[in-house]
This record gives sequence, C-alpha cells and structure tokens, in this order.
Amino acid sequence: MTDDAPFFGIENSDAAGAVVLVCEHASNAFPAPWDDGLGLSEDQRRAHIAWDPGALGVARGLAQALDGALIHARASRLIYDLNRPPHAPGAMPARSEIHDIPGNVDLDAAERLARTRTHYLPFHAALADLLACRLAQGLSPVLITVHSFTPIYFGQPRAVEFGLIHDADDRLARAICAQKTGLLTRLNEPYSAADGVAHMLARHATPLGLPHAMLEIRNDLIATPKAQAAMAARLAPAIKAAMDEVG
Amino acid sequence: MTDDAPFFGIENSDAAGAVVLVCEHASNAFPAPWDDGLGLSEDQRRAHIAWDPGALGVARGLAQALDGALIHARASRLIYDLNRPPHAPGAMPARSEIHDIPGNVDLDAAERLARTRTHYLPFHAALADLLACRLAQGLSPVLITVHSFTPIYFGQPRAVEFGLIHDADDRLARAICAQKTGLLTRLNEPYSAADGVAHMLARHATPLGLPHAMLEIRNDLIATPKAQAAMAARLAPAIKAAMDEVG
Repeated sequence: MTDDAPFFGIENSDAAGAVVLVCEHASNAFPAPWDDGLGLSEDQRRAHIAWDPGALGVARGLAQALDGALIHARASRLIYDLNRPPHAPGAMPARSEIHDIPGNVDLDAAERLARTRTHYLPFHAALADLLACRLAQGLSPVLITVHSFTPIYFGQPRAVEFGLIHDADDRLARAICAQKTGLLTRLNEPYSAADGVAHMLARHATPLGLPHAMLEIRNDLIATPKAQAAMAARLAPAIKAAMDEVG
Repeated sequence: MTDDAPFFGIENSDAAGAVVLVCEHASNAFPAPWDDGLGLSEDQRRAHIAWDPGALGVARGLAQALDGALIHARASRLIYDLNRPPHAPGAMPARSEIHDIPGNVDLDAAERLARTRTHYLPFHAALADLLACRLAQGLSPVLITVHSFTPIYFGQPRAVEFGLIHDADDRLARAICAQKTGLLTRLNEPYSAADGVAHMLARHATPLGLPHAMLEIRNDLIATPKAQAAMAARLAPAIKAAMDEVG
C-alpha cells in the first residue's frame, strides 16, 4: 500500500508486539506541489507549527523497544493535519498559534478535496489495515500516538513535561500516567479530547474497542537524536508495564 | 476504487443529496473462491442468515428518492459480515441463528486475514472515501444503513415492522421514529448497539460527528421488487423530514 502513498511511511509492519504506533506530525517536509512551503519562511517551517519536533525519533525508539509497528507522516501537518477530519478548520489551517499560513487562506473545495485524497484517506486506510489485519489474526493491538508540544504557547510557558490523552477508554492513558518516569506527567494536558485532538484515537481505537493513548512530550526534552533515544528508553518500560496492567 | 474491489458496488457516488446509504447485507452471492456456498444448502443460501432480503431494493429506492449515494455488498455476509470488526465472532460466523455454517468452522488466521483484506477493508475504505470527500468539499453527509430482519427469530414472531438503531447520536433515529409512516415502529428494536450491530455507524458516523441511523425493516414487508419500491416511497419523506429536523 505504501507504493501509492508517497506521504507516509510504515516501518516494522509485521512486528510481533501488540503496539501500533502512529506519528502523524512526524515531518516538516513540503513535497511538491506544496514545495513553496505554503508561503512560510524557513524559520516557520522549522517551528512546531509545521510538525512535532522530536516525535518521530521517540516513536522509532519505542517501535524498536516494544517491537511495534509504526506509521508516520512524510509531509507537514500544515498541508493536512492527519489528526483532524476533513471538515475541521485545523485540517488545513489558515492560522496556527500566532502564524498566518498564506498557502491555506481561502482554500477552495477542489484543493481541500485533493489534499484529503492524497494525505488523509491513504494514511487512515493504511492504519485501518494495520489494525484490522492484526485483529483478523487473533492479535490484540494497542494504539499509541506519539506527539510533542511546544514549551511556550501563546507566550505562556508550560510546566508539564509528559501528557497522556485518551478518547473513550481512559485505562491505558491512566496506567501510563501512574508509572514512575521521572517526568512531570499529567492526564489530559496540555490538552484533551475536548479540544478535538483525539481524532486518530476516535477513528481507529474506539470503534474497535482497542486500548489507546496519545503521548505528548514537551519538545525541549527531545531536541536531539540522543535525547529522543533516551526518552524512548525512559518511556518504553512504563508503556510496557501499563499495557500489562490493562491486559 | 471499485476496480480493485469486486465484492461491493457504489451507485450515484456523486449524488448531490446529503444521504450516504449503506447496504452491507445486500447480497446472498457466494463468489469464488467461496462458490461452494460454505457448505450450505440452496435453501439456506436464500434465507435471511445469508443476507437481508429486500434491503438492497429499498436502499436503491431511497437513493433515488433522496438523491443519495449508495454502497452495497456483492457477497454474502456469511463470508464476511461487513457490519462486524474482524475480531467479532459474527464477522465470519460458525453458526447463525439455528444454522451451522460448515465453511466457517475452525477458520485459521490466514483465511480470516484473507477475507478481512478482500471484503472488510476495501468496503470500509470506500465508505470512508465517500464521506471524507463530501466533508472536504463543505458538504454535511448523513449516514443511513439499510437492513431487513426476519419475522420469526429462534421460533418467536416479531411484531415490530420498522426499527431505528443509533450509535452515540440518537437524534436522527429518534426523529425518523417520530414520523408517521403507518408502520409499527420502535427505537432500538429488534436489537440495538449493545448487541454489536452498530459497527458501521460507530466506525464511520460517530468519529466524524455525522447524523446517522440504521433502518431495520421486517423482511416480509419487502419481499418483492414492488413492495421494496413502495417501502422506499413510504420511508423517503419520513427520512427527509427527520433530516430537516436534525439539520
């Protein structure tokens, strides 16, 4: 399926572990025909508005430590935010935090449809495939999405270091939250499903009754490949213990 | 997408109306490699265990009357019940009501995976596509699934003629239920989401916040093409009025 879908990648698709990891904000690439970067400066394209810096490195470390499959985006969430349905304003946002996104202003229906077809639909079909094929074979997959958040948002510093967000079933998120990781950890911070950030979980975990959690890691803690590997090594045993508890 | 998916059909995919109709139990065909009919007799293959008799005729009538899109199965639900996730016992049932299904006994993981890949995944991807493309263009789709049920179940007659079932959002089902159709109508009869019959709604309507309803029509009322057309003509104004109320 990856042949037809240039805007995401799948790693370890046949992994034996229960975890299916999703990193939908993995990339700040602006592939053609969006290679003008939607009119943003290079600084803006490197900033957290374009992606979740460090998240892919942590997700890859977790996939290795937990023997999990991983699906990750290969294009900026400003082209299409895969964690939003096509009718959400945030799917192709005209503004993100304090930044206007020139290339997303007054998008017509044809452009919204084109991005939905090239980004949203293939990614979600591929994730549905990963999960359904495991279920068909009698396996019990667990869905974990990996994100990072900015330490300063609208000028305000955020103290929380590690947030766990859930959709309908809070068991896995609470169980991870209760592990000792040495991080300042909070449930449903810095945001929650009520903010519309749980689409991936609501679309893929809840209808199938799968244990799930959305990990949010403050991005200053995972700024380098070394820090990302260390964070994955820190979180993997906590996630494993929480999965064992939830069963 | 239909080229790769021989086991379902899509009609009126570009329909202008809000309704997207689903008829997942439309067919009692047993296409190859299941053309031995899973070991069932011809009578069993014609019975309600293999499909929802009359449902496709009603669904087509509704698609025409409401200018809606329609996606329908082209293979028996005994091969794969598209309204069940791959891990549900009812997805590829070894027994249905009082009938054993020989070709579904002791299915191995490879066969379950094959049917999931050929039936479940393409159908659900196509429906996701129909809905997401409407949302991307600023339309507000409504998801309605069309089923029929047997008048006698485990030897007991059923009095209800028309049932409305919902997932998380009960507004449309209640609004249709309140219309005057001349039918003995009940909410969440002859079964409800608690019986695991709302997978299609839970998977496609609820995560997108779409108004939805599952129609259940007693199959003795829609036994002929003429009766199916009459039922569609009877229900279409009720559904239209209910959709207008829900907005």
